[in-house]
Amino acid sequence: MFFEGSEKKIELVMCNNAVSLRSLGTDFWANIVAQCEAEILSSISNEKCDAYLLSESSLFVWDHHFLMLTCGTTTLVNSLNAFLDHFESQFEQIQSIIFQRKNEYQSHLQKTSFEQDINQLQKRLSGVAFQLGNLDSHHNYIYHLDQAYTPHQADKTFELLMYHIDGEAADYLRTEQQCAAKIRTLLNLEKLLPDFVINDYVFEPFGYSMNAIAGDKYATMHITPQEQSSYVSFETNLDINQHQVNIFTHLVQLLNPCSFDIISFNAEVHIESQHSLMNQVEQPLSCGYTMRFKEYMRQQKRSLASQITL
Amino acid sequence: MFFEGSEKKIELVMCNNAVSLRSLGTDFWANIVAQCEAEILSSISNEKCDAYLLSESSLFVWDHHFLMLTCGTTTLVNSLNAFLDHFESQFEQIQSIIFQRKNEYQSHLQKTSFEQDINQLQKRLSGVAFQLGNLDSHHNYIYHLDQAYTPHQADKTFELLMYHIDGEAADYLRTEQQCAAKIRTLLNLEKLLPDFVINDYVFEPFGYSMNAIAGDKYATMHITPQEQSSYVSFETNLDINQHQVNIFTHLVQLLNPCSFDIISFNAEVHIESQHSLMNQVEQPLSCGYTMRFKEYMRQQKRSLASQITL
Repeated sequence: MFFEGSEKKIELVMCNNAVSLRSLGTDFWANIVAQCEAEILSSISNEKCDAYLLSESSLFVWDHHFLMLTCGTTTLVNSLNAFLDHFESQFEQIQSIIFQRKNEYQSHLQKTSFEQDINQLQKRLSGVAFQLGNLDSHHNYIYHLDQAYTPHQADKTFELLMYHIDGEAADYLRTEQQCAAKIRTLLNLEKLLPDFVINDYVFEPFGYSMNAIAGDKYATMHITPQEQSSYVSFETNLDINQHQVNIFTHLVQLLNPCSFDIISFNAEVHIESQHSLMNQVEQPLSCGYTMRFKEYMRQQKRSLASQITL
Repeated sequence: MFFEGSEKKIELVMCNNAVSLRSLGTDFWANIVAQCEAEILSSISNEKCDAYLLSESSLFVWDHHFLMLTCGTTTLVNSLNAFLDHFESQFEQIQSIIFQRKNEYQSHLQKTSFEQDINQLQKRLSGVAFQLGNLDSHHNYIYHLDQAYTPHQADKTFELLMYHIDGEAADYLRTEQQCAAKIRTLLNLEKLLPDFVINDYVFEPFGYSMNAIAGDKYATMHITPQEQSSYVSFETNLDINQHQVNIFTHLVQLLNPCSFDIISFNAEVHIESQHSLMNQVEQPLSCGYTMRFKEYMRQQKRSLASQITL
C-alpha cells in the first residue's frame, strides 16, 4: 500500500524571444511526460497557460516557462534531459532551470538518488546544489543553473507539504468510492481559489489530484492519503500573503498533519498553527531567488508501534 | 565524507544447557563478523564476557547469548544467517532473537532494506516486525522471534542515539590526530563507568569506538563525527536509573545533539535536557520485552543551506 507522494519538480524559464513552449503542442509534452514514466490524464487551458493533470502529479506550460511535478518512483530527471535534448542547439535561450526533490518517506525505493540525478545534469549544465534542512529530519534538495536571472517582482512560489494527516477530513480521504465534488467541498476549494478553473481527478481506490488556473496563476494539490505514509502537497504562485484567506493556515487546520514543511521562493510565509517551528533555512540562490524552508512538527501522544506485514 | 553511523543490531539468547557461545572460539566469531563485511580489531575478556571491537562497531559474547552491532553499509543479516546455519539442527536451543535497524541518514545507500532483511529471515524463522516512530521522522525497526521468553528481571537495555552533535566536544571529535586518552577524558568515561575495563579505538582521520565490560555488564559507544551527518550511540545493560550518574543526561549535555532517540527494553528512561519530546512509542513484544522509543528534538536557529559538492 505504500506510495511515495513526495514530488520531484522542474521549473524552467526560456527567454522572451524563444519559441512559445505552448506551441510545441500536446504530443511534444506527452513525450516529455512519458520519459519519466507518467502520462497525461486530462488538461485545461486559458489564454496564458496549459495545465496537464498527470498520472503522477502535474505539468503547467506557459509561453516561456514550464513547471513539472511528479511523485511516486518517476524519474523526472529523464523528462528534463529529453527537454534539453530538444533545445540542444538553443541552450542560450534557457534563462533558468531549477530541479528540486522534496523530503521522501522511503528514498531507498526510488530509482535514482538526488546525487545521481544532478551528477547526470551537471554533465551538460553548469549548476549548483543545496540541501535545506537536516539529513536526519525533513530536508529539500535543489539544483539550479549557476547563472544570473532576474525574476519578475510578482514571481513568488509557495509550497506546503503535509505529512501524516489526521482527523475527519483525512478519514474521508481514505474511504473508497470518494468523489471529486465532495473533496472540493471538504477542502473548500471554491472559496480558497475563487476565479480559478479547476480540473481534478480521484484515483482508485483513493488519492486526489487537482490543477487550477486563473490567468497566469496556478495552484496544484496532490493527496496521498495512505495511513502510515500520508502526504498532501499544495503549491501556487498566487501571493498567499495578499489573498483573502490564508490558504496554508486553512489546509493545516483541516488536515491536521503531524508535520509539515513550507518552502517558498522570493516570499516569506506566515501561518497560524499549534505546530512548533523546528528548523528554518534561508538561502539566496545565484539564479535570482531566495529559497526558504521551514519545518514544523507537533508533539505526538504516546502510541503503540505499527506492525509490519510479513 | 558521508558515513552511516547508525547501527543494525542482533541480540540472540540460547538456552542454558546449550554449548557455551564463548567456547566456539575467536575463529568462529571472526567468521560471523566477516559475513557482514566487518572485521575484529581487538578484544577484551572477563569471567563472563568476550567483547570484540569491530571495524564497524561491536560484538559481545556471553556463554548463552550474544549481541552484535554494526554500522556503515554492513549486511548484518548475513552474520545472523551464518550463525543460524551453524545451529541449523539445534534451533530449539534458541530462545530469543531480536534484529533491529536504527534510524538511517541515507537508507538508499544501504545494500539491503529492513524489509528485504526480514523477508529473508522469515524464510527460516517465525517472527513479527514493528516500526516504532513515524516514517518521515526518526524511527526504529525491530524483528523478533514470535516465541514466549521470560527475560531475567535485571535484563534491561538502554540505547541513546544522538544526531548532529555540536559544541566544543563535537569540535574536538572532528579534529584529526585526536587521541583515545583525550576522548576518554572529554567524555568522562572513567567517571561514568567506574569498575569497567575499557577497550577503545580511534579511526583515521577521526571516529571513535569503545567497548567496556564489568562482570556481565557491558557498555559500548560509537562516534561518527562527520559534519552534516554526525551520529553518536551509547548502549548498555547497566541499569542507568540506578547508577550514580545519569549517563544519558551527561552525554546529551556534553555532545549537544540537534536530535536524539532513546530506546529501551524493559525499562523507562528519564533524562534532563532542553530538547522537546516529540514522539513516544511503547510496544509490548511477544518475546517478553516491552520496547520503548522516544524521539527528542530541539528547535534550531535560522541557518543557511548546506552546499552539495558536484
